[in-house]
Amino acid sequence: MENKAANWLVSDMGKIVVLRMGHRAVRDKRITTHVALTARGLGADGILICRVNDTKITCSVDRVVEQWGGKFSIGFCPSWKTAITQWLGRGGEVIHLTMYGLPLLEVLEQIRKSEKDKLVVVGAEKVPGEVYELATHNVSVSNQPISEVSALGVFLDRYFGGKELSKEFEGHKILILPQKAGKKTIP
Amino acid sequence: MENKAANWLVSDMGKIVVLRMGHRAVRDKRITTHVALTARGLGADGILICRVNDTKITCSVDRVVEQWGGKFSIGFCPSWKTAITQWLGRGGEVIHLTMYGLPLLEVLEQIRKSEKDKLVVVGAEKVPGEVYELATHNVSVSNQPISEVSALGVFLDRYFGGKELSKEFEGHKILILPQKAGKKTIP
Repeated sequence: MENKAANWLVSDMGKIVVLRMGHRAVRDKRITTHVALTARGLGADGILICRVNDTKITCSVDRVVEQWGGKFSIGFCPSWKTAITQWLGRGGEVIHLTMYGLPLLEVLEQIRKSEKDKLVVVGAEKVPGEVYELATHNVSVSNQPISEVSALGVFLDRYFGGKELSKEFEGHKILILPQKAGKKTIP
Repeated sequence: MENKAANWLVSDMGKIVVLRMGHRAVRDKRITTHVALTARGLGADGILICRVNDTKITCSVDRVVEQWGGKFSIGFCPSWKTAITQWLGRGGEVIHLTMYGLPLLEVLEQIRKSEKDKLVVVGAEKVPGEVYELATHNVSVSNQPISEVSALGVFLDRYFGGKELSKEFEGHKILILPQKAGKKTIP
């Protein structure tokens, strides 16, 4: 298992990958699915889920990718520590979204300027103190309890400067034609 | 019940209120809680939840307000239609977040310029076609399936232009002192 997790990281998951920590099957299934869909829809290249290999999430996300297109990797790793240290070890940086961190708008330009690959860490249950120490940046999307889903959404939107909102997803089966009212899709 | 819902709307819930549609107790409890906390944390004044009166959510949100401060109303209404038509009837406008709508960045300035009170509608299950017709704006936060939680987060962040990220919440018992690493709170 540990080696398989390592392979996920060594293989190219992309430049912007979300690490979902502390996922508990059943309890977190829907929230983690929302995290994954937010990651995909707002421009990230993949998601690594710690610690449970939850095939229901893979199925949901794979179905979305098949219909809506684009490339999006989904992987599971038993250890967040392996994931983070390997990411750092191959020259990437780690952005930990936490309400205790420095305000997003204070650190955003520094993060945007850096060309390093980014692992964006969001927690489910209580995040171990070590994560705060290992992270390159601990970033708060407000210092209030919100939701890891909206924190990730706001972070990605700010990071990509809104360009992600019109990202094209190659190989889609469905495409939305934006409407003032109603729903229109191709085909 | 209908009258009570009406009272919620006639009473002043605030200028920016989120309407959470199609909430199903048990299944949606956690997602709706994330919607409510995102609404509160990112500057909305309250949330109206249709259609189930779910006291577990009220308890979670009230506990957050008690500890973290600020004013935030939470109400339940059995009928989304009553909520929307009454909101419109008292001169407000309705912003429906849907992946089928017009791109956020195309309509944002128009929405920001309008001084009307805003009911921001997010759906859980499939949203009835009538909502698209009644809404003042149908707005997409990307035309991809993401999450109502992140769509709301991005919308509020864009609407408030980042000012909500440093909003002060009066009467708090806990306050975070943002840190480069670790957690620091007052007291």
